[in-house]
Amino acid sequence: RIDGERLWQSLMDLAAIGATEKGGVKRLALTDLDREGRNLVVRWGREAGLEVTVDQIGNVFMRRKGRNPDALPIVTGSHVDTQPTGGKFDGNYGVLAGLEVVRTLNDKGIQTEAPIEVAFWTNEEGSRFVPVMMGSGVFCGAFSLETAYAARDVDGKSVREELERIGYLGDEIPGRHPIGAYFETHIEQGPVLEDADKVIGVVPAVMGLSWYDCVVTGMEAHAGPTPMGLRRDALQVATTIMQEVVAIANRYPPYGRGTVGMVQVFPNSRNVIPGQVKFSIDLRNVSDGLLNTMHEEMLAFVARTREQSGLAIEVERVSYYPPCPFHPDCVNAVRAATEQLGYSNMDVVSGAGHDAIYAARVAPAGMIFVPCKDGISHNEIEDARPDHLEAGCNVLLHAMLERAGI
Amino acid sequence: RIDGERLWQSLMDLAAIGATEKGGVKRLALTDLDREGRNLVVRWGREAGLEVTVDQIGNVFMRRKGRNPDALPIVTGSHVDTQPTGGKFDGNYGVLAGLEVVRTLNDKGIQTEAPIEVAFWTNEEGSRFVPVMMGSGVFCGAFSLETAYAARDVDGKSVREELERIGYLGDEIPGRHPIGAYFETHIEQGPVLEDADKVIGVVPAVMGLSWYDCVVTGMEAHAGPTPMGLRRDALQVATTIMQEVVAIANRYPPYGRGTVGMVQVFPNSRNVIPGQVKFSIDLRNVSDGLLNTMHEEMLAFVARTREQSGLAIEVERVSYYPPCPFHPDCVNAVRAATEQLGYSNMDVVSGAGHDAIYAARVAPAGMIFVPCKDGISHNEIEDARPDHLEAGCNVLLHAMLERAGI
Ligand SMILES: NC(=O)NCCC(=O)O
Ligand SMILES: NC(=O)NCCC(=O)O
Repeated sequence: RIDGERLWQSLMDLAAIGATEKGGVKRLALTDLDREGRNLVVRWGREAGLEVTVDQIGNVFMRRKGRNPDALPIVTGSHVDTQPTGGKFDGNYGVLAGLEVVRTLNDKGIQTEAPIEVAFWTNEEGSRFVPVMMGSGVFCGAFSLETAYAARDVDGKSVREELERIGYLGDEIPGRHPIGAYFETHIEQGPVLEDADKVIGVVPAVMGLSWYDCVVTGMEAHAGPTPMGLRRDALQVATTIMQEVVAIANRYPPYGRGTVGMVQVFPNSRNVIPGQVKFSIDLRNVSDGLLNTMHEEMLAFVARTREQSGLAIEVERVSYYPPCPFHPDCVNAVRAATEQLGYSNMDVVSGAGHDAIYAARVAPAGMIFVPCKDGISHNEIEDARPDHLEAGCNVLLHAMLERAGI
Repeated sequence: RIDGERLWQSLMDLAAIGATEKGGVKRLALTDLDREGRNLVVRWGREAGLEVTVDQIGNVFMRRKGRNPDALPIVTGSHVDTQPTGGKFDGNYGVLAGLEVVRTLNDKGIQTEAPIEVAFWTNEEGSRFVPVMMGSGVFCGAFSLETAYAARDVDGKSVREELERIGYLGDEIPGRHPIGAYFETHIEQGPVLEDADKVIGVVPAVMGLSWYDCVVTGMEAHAGPTPMGLRRDALQVATTIMQEVVAIANRYPPYGRGTVGMVQVFPNSRNVIPGQVKFSIDLRNVSDGLLNTMHEEMLAFVARTREQSGLAIEVERVSYYPPCPFHPDCVNAVRAATEQLGYSNMDVVSGAGHDAIYAARVAPAGMIFVPCKDGISHNEIEDARPDHLEAGCNVLLHAMLERAGI
């Protein structure tokens, strides 16, 4: 069993770097604070005897040797960057749980057959640079190193410049680092475990995601003198689509998700009928077939609405990744460890994207979820219980040992 | 008959002050440009032999003496301030049509029984300082001089300071200036005349208006991991109210109006379920009874929605004025002049607020509408036809003469 207090202390120490007034963390990817956070984790890794490798996109791998030098490493990890108003646990927990596994193996003098590695991936959050999940995305070839290097923040600074500046532009070619199996522990970022009062979520899969930008264009006009019948009110048309996004998701339970999170109204004046409305659509499902059905239903609704309203409606897909079922060997290793340790558990499909979906493209992968308070993350009030974090880390230890062999 | 070309030329000369690249005008109330516009109109007034009075809120009255010194003046006017992205005609037309009436009387050597006055009211648009229709509002006692003086722009400059700075802080106590009857010519700011192919709108009344701020508060959460059934999506609840606002207006044709013009979503992020949505509601009707019914139906819908959704919904009324029926004598004078001059015409209820509704509280009042292109105003592309503007001015001349007596 791991040392829950040591894990908690490490989480709090790391959270002090970029701590916000409201108790959260702001440690954006490739900033000075990210360097400080990375350096602390690397120092801890070296103190635990790990050998550190950095690749060309700044992904860091910290290896504990195994008995068999030819065996592929069993890797765990996540990310240390945070949202601008982020919490202490998102990503950081996955990295420090890995470190705690290593510290525990050291304490107990356990040697594994395969090497054990703790990794952290660059710019998972995507808040400063897009695409999100950048380090793991480059690693698995979802997009190129050149694409990632060229990404710039709002001040025009590039990923390559910033990697170099903070000293994390490594030598290793991304993806050349072999992985035998990958595990990632993470707070759930949703309310399912808490709602069901379970300690561990066994993650069979991550939902696929489709993101769209939708623009409805009518005609702005004065709210007083323009009769209802002569209006081309972009907002009234947009709101029917916004409601349909949710209706579509509700038609495909339990894993259909439909969200409109971002809305801009033009000219956004109290007595002007909106001439244009731009908004985002986020559709998710764990079945690619159903996700595609949702996509088709949304496009069909937009087409009908365009015809009925006579307004111009554009909808463009801006992101997509398919659902990612995790490898049965990894999922079973997590489930077996949970049962063996006697933790209450349930299967929880991940609604959020994680580095594990990209790692899963190059190796068998699996995830372990623990509850977070009120299901809230990407928020400074994000919180999780020490006993839950400890439980997730114990499951990680056992699952990794099962894969690595003793 | 007035001189249409001279009227057009004056409109274009005034529009040169604050002209924008897109052919509109930006001449915000009490700015240096407003001073320049005011000075030009006052110079033209003096050149036409008018005697100029300025009151303490900067309203300007320019008088042409009548035969009977005891008769109350027949006043016409509007405003010379514009929207930030305003047009050449809104307000400015009403003032320069009055000036053209005076010039025509001068040319023809016509003396009227009652004096004739051309007025312009301070800060009608309300873009720089609220409340809107400030000068006429203070004049009729809708709100106090102190309230108006204390209003500040975004840079913290007050109405009083700015009146003084531009030299339009007059002596006369607002409202002490007697008015026998008030007429205002204005572009329609709606599509009704153009749609019906009529030249003149006889305005029997201005709709009453109720403005509200509505705030729906749910709980922000991650768009992926949060199941549909556990969401408290503020936008989905807000959109049902936004649609009901329009539905309510449609239940009270032909004069019911319902508009949501302004929307703010928090935190407005693509993969975050909106935790809060703020939006404006604008309800109008020409019957105060129906406006009140619309108000009650909106509140009842909000109450039902609050109960059904379990979300917090606040709705606060932030502005209200009742419908303003114009005086039969003035309305009939406008209609008679229109018929006599042989212009096609129809009654058009004004959906927009005008200085005339406040003038109507202290004297018989009426309005004359002319078409504007595509019904568009509060926009740099606002446009109107010279022959329509000339026709409206002819109607004004005849209606004023009818009231003033020759
Ligand atoms: N874990 C996480 O928040 N990923 C961001 C992408 C998404 O799932 O919306
Ligand atoms: N004429 C005009 O646009 N007034 C502003 C107030 C309103 O009617 O919305």
